[in-house]
Amino acid sequence: MGVVVRGARPDDRDDLCGALVACGAFTSEEVGIAQQILDEALVAGPESGYTLFVADGEGRARGYVCVGRTPLTESTWHVYWICVDPAFQRKGVGRALQQHAEHAVAAAGGSRLVLETSGKPSYAPARVFYEQAGYAVVGRIPDYYRSGDDCVLYCKRLTD
Amino acid sequence: MGVVVRGARPDDRDDLCGALVACGAFTSEEVGIAQQILDEALVAGPESGYTLFVADGEGRARGYVCVGRTPLTESTWHVYWICVDPAFQRKGVGRALQQHAEHAVAAAGGSRLVLETSGKPSYAPARVFYEQAGYAVVGRIPDYYRSGDDCVLYCKRLTD
Repeated sequence: MGVVVRGARPDDRDDLCGALVACGAFTSEEVGIAQQILDEALVAGPESGYTLFVADGEGRARGYVCVGRTPLTESTWHVYWICVDPAFQRKGVGRALQQHAEHAVAAAGGSRLVLETSGKPSYAPARVFYEQAGYAVVGRIPDYYRSGDDCVLYCKRLTD
Repeated sequence: MGVVVRGARPDDRDDLCGALVACGAFTSEEVGIAQQILDEALVAGPESGYTLFVADGEGRARGYVCVGRTPLTESTWHVYWICVDPAFQRKGVGRALQQHAEHAVAAAGGSRLVLETSGKPSYAPARVFYEQAGYAVVGRIPDYYRSGDDCVLYCKRLTD
């Protein structure tokens, strides 16, 4: 199954919302907020503060990454969401999305990417994914999401 | 000069915008964003996601603290801004605002406060202020705001 990464289109919305639910990584509150951001970004484009890239497999959107400039910083960006439909996981799609986003951020003058994820054992695969991609732990906030669920902060420098 | 901390009123706007500029701690971009948030919070109240407390001295607003629930967390809140008019600094006004906010957050069920500040030498007084108030460093993102200007993350647990 070949997958290509491209910009997002408004008609990707239903596929992306479906992937958010199907991937099983997010609570209903997280899905709701992610959908709000999708709606803003699909309508307003980068003016929304968010930029989306979509993994297109067999003509449909199978996952996406959402990044945006970090307010009040000169050249820091955040990775807000990354999500891949379960049928397309374990095929390098997440890695392709991440790398595409990094190149796009660097091309836009961004010098580093910051992201937050959970410290729970069930999120170990996500943390390994980021660490293998060159992200370093820059912080850990105990019990941030809820008791027993720390926030782990990662940063990757894109330029020397 | 006696100062009392109270809720914010729409007619505090001009005094608070004046304090933001006068305190000299913020760039023009930071002042602009802080004013946008003030406008949202003064019109919509806590529905905006922000809660303001004002230091009232001689009948006028001399400073404020802005806090809000952190999205996607169970009981974490952020301190977004704290600002005191220079004529009212070094009198414990910042400390009174901070403590008032902590009590209000705890009363609303918040269990911890997180804040971000600069690692620059010129921000050492702010970092000492937070450390003396019981905030612990939980992260540091190199060159976050711009080259040579790290983000230092603090957290204070409000409940055991």
